[in-house]
Amino acid sequence: MNNPVTFELLHTCKQSGARLGVLHTPHGDIPTPIYMPVGTQATVKAMTPREMEEINAKIILSNTYHLHLRPGEDIVREAGGLLQFMDWHHPVLTDSGGFQVFSLAGLRKITEEGVAFRSHLDGSKQFISPEVSMDIQQALGSDIAMAFDVCSPYPCDHKTAEEAMHRTHRWAERCQKHHTRSDQALFGIVQGAFYEDLRIESAKTLADMDFPGYGIGGLSVGEPKPIMYDMLEKIEPYMPKHKPRYLMGVGTPDCFLEGVLRGIDMFDCVLATRIARNGTVFTRHGRLVVRNAQYARDFEPLEEGCDCYACQHFSRAYIRHLLKADEITGGRLASIHNLRFLIRMMEEIRQAILEDRFLDYRKEFYEKYDMTRNF
Amino acid sequence: MNNPVTFELLHTCKQSGARLGVLHTPHGDIPTPIYMPVGTQATVKAMTPREMEEINAKIILSNTYHLHLRPGEDIVREAGGLLQFMDWHHPVLTDSGGFQVFSLAGLRKITEEGVAFRSHLDGSKQFISPEVSMDIQQALGSDIAMAFDVCSPYPCDHKTAEEAMHRTHRWAERCQKHHTRSDQALFGIVQGAFYEDLRIESAKTLADMDFPGYGIGGLSVGEPKPIMYDMLEKIEPYMPKHKPRYLMGVGTPDCFLEGVLRGIDMFDCVLATRIARNGTVFTRHGRLVVRNAQYARDFEPLEEGCDCYACQHFSRAYIRHLLKADEITGGRLASIHNLRFLIRMMEEIRQAILEDRFLDYRKEFYEKYDMTRNF
Repeated sequence: MNNPVTFELLHTCKQSGARLGVLHTPHGDIPTPIYMPVGTQATVKAMTPREMEEINAKIILSNTYHLHLRPGEDIVREAGGLLQFMDWHHPVLTDSGGFQVFSLAGLRKITEEGVAFRSHLDGSKQFISPEVSMDIQQALGSDIAMAFDVCSPYPCDHKTAEEAMHRTHRWAERCQKHHTRSDQALFGIVQGAFYEDLRIESAKTLADMDFPGYGIGGLSVGEPKPIMYDMLEKIEPYMPKHKPRYLMGVGTPDCFLEGVLRGIDMFDCVLATRIARNGTVFTRHGRLVVRNAQYARDFEPLEEGCDCYACQHFSRAYIRHLLKADEITGGRLASIHNLRFLIRMMEEIRQAILEDRFLDYRKEFYEKYDMTRNF
Repeated sequence: MNNPVTFELLHTCKQSGARLGVLHTPHGDIPTPIYMPVGTQATVKAMTPREMEEINAKIILSNTYHLHLRPGEDIVREAGGLLQFMDWHHPVLTDSGGFQVFSLAGLRKITEEGVAFRSHLDGSKQFISPEVSMDIQQALGSDIAMAFDVCSPYPCDHKTAEEAMHRTHRWAERCQKHHTRSDQALFGIVQGAFYEDLRIESAKTLADMDFPGYGIGGLSVGEPKPIMYDMLEKIEPYMPKHKPRYLMGVGTPDCFLEGVLRGIDMFDCVLATRIARNGTVFTRHGRLVVRNAQYARDFEPLEEGCDCYACQHFSRAYIRHLLKADEITGGRLASIHNLRFLIRMMEEIRQAILEDRFLDYRKEFYEKYDMTRNF
């Protein structure tokens, strides 16, 4: 079967081993490594599609769980699919809902068949199985669908992690079997919590199932970052070289650097837009809380040298004023900056890989970046 | 003295007497009749300046009361003035704060000197007099400042209304005396509540003071619209013909038609953006509550034929989804549409006046417009 999404490994950095590639999808090519902004409810919060194009976003992520509950996949399908519905005529990846229902601790029950849960919106009884997740994602019509998985918490004992992993593998098979949409790729998800043996077993098992790409799930769930990095190093040799590797839910500057160094091609995270609305922005020097009083009379841009609309036109003093005054435009401008910051950083990372100097880039980044002001 | 703001009456509609003009200001010419979107806190809610340009906004209004309390006029002055602060390089009108402090019923005390009040933000003691209002507006650096006036409620007895009017006149003199900024015009404000004799006296008194333009204040404060229209008719003959007339705080489609018919040149109102964020939009057929369930599967634009970004790219179903999901983008798209609706209507009104067919335009508008779905 011709796969609708294929990955081309273009170059491996001679200095670091970091990967440069391109992901071909039905709605366009995506250069990798890539950061995917998150549009949970069929919109990247506070942003319009044309603003997403302006900051050079190439692909956005949307959420099966949220869209299933509201507005419902039927409405999205009737609209002509998610891209048409949200006027984003570029690639979209949907997650499976697995992580969201896992996060509903106390409100959900996991059985072999699937996950029964209560809607966080109205308390109504809901059920998502691998098959239901596939049905929803096929109705949404994303370019990339994710398998419905079982995420383990941190910390988690070996037995629980192993059972969750085996169930994830069985569910991955059910997803593969149920998935039929020919213009949509289905990615598998590696689980195994924080156990090297399980992570390697999961990577191998899923590699044998020949998915066109792989998520690495269940990381960044509360563990220290070095533990996450360890896991990435351990599984790297077992991840198929010519398939894209997507580190799910991760998106800070240092995690980009460490993930890319460990062979990651795709990232997503809501952090950029979430902290923006609360008045915190990324800079090359670390986190800057523009809401703070010290910026009341600071007429410099959020970040010197940034090419985004917010930095090209407005001062910290103005954006602080908007945020303090609960003006939507404050969150909008900070969101534009934060998303552009991450996208621009990825552009630089790709260039550094191409020029075989990714370790230099990483070192220079850390030299400027104040890790005490990290996330 | 050369006035920084001058009004040119270009044409009077032969069919209706409606006025077509141009207001020359330090930051550009404004065609009249004009609708001025409101940017209370130095931003039109949910909009960026470039979006305001895109919908063809020519001038925006900002609020002395709000900016005085937050961020304070000193910060705005240090930023280089309001235009620089908010990156809006077109004309700005500031109101005087009179209406805002009047609205703080129970929290303010009016004396001959000025108004003592408690800040709605932190309860701090504040005081605005005609002189303070001038100082603030001169620090803000708007193109047009408004005199600090006393607004009467509806209903209001004749004696109270008369006293408020006389104080307004005395304060207008103090404003005129205190105002020195040569690149900013000061407009007077006609008061007199709902008494013909007072309104005429106020119009005459202020005309004698030779302001470069006149606000008509204290209307649209709860009275039935026909009573407001009556007042406009009564004072029209006493308003200087070659000065702009600004009906303060008024901005619905029917009020545009009736105001223009009665010689009004300028309008402002927060309604467009306020109702937008609550999911209600203007259409040629009347109010449309796009939040309502009936639009869940309606894939038509907010308004057929509208040229705004929201209508050109998104469906009612999508915008409803965003609003229901509390997504900022929902309020943004509805705001763009509502502002563009009013601005476009004014463009049409100006064209109709120019072509001496304003009565026809008004009739055609009402024929399509469902007044039971009016505001």
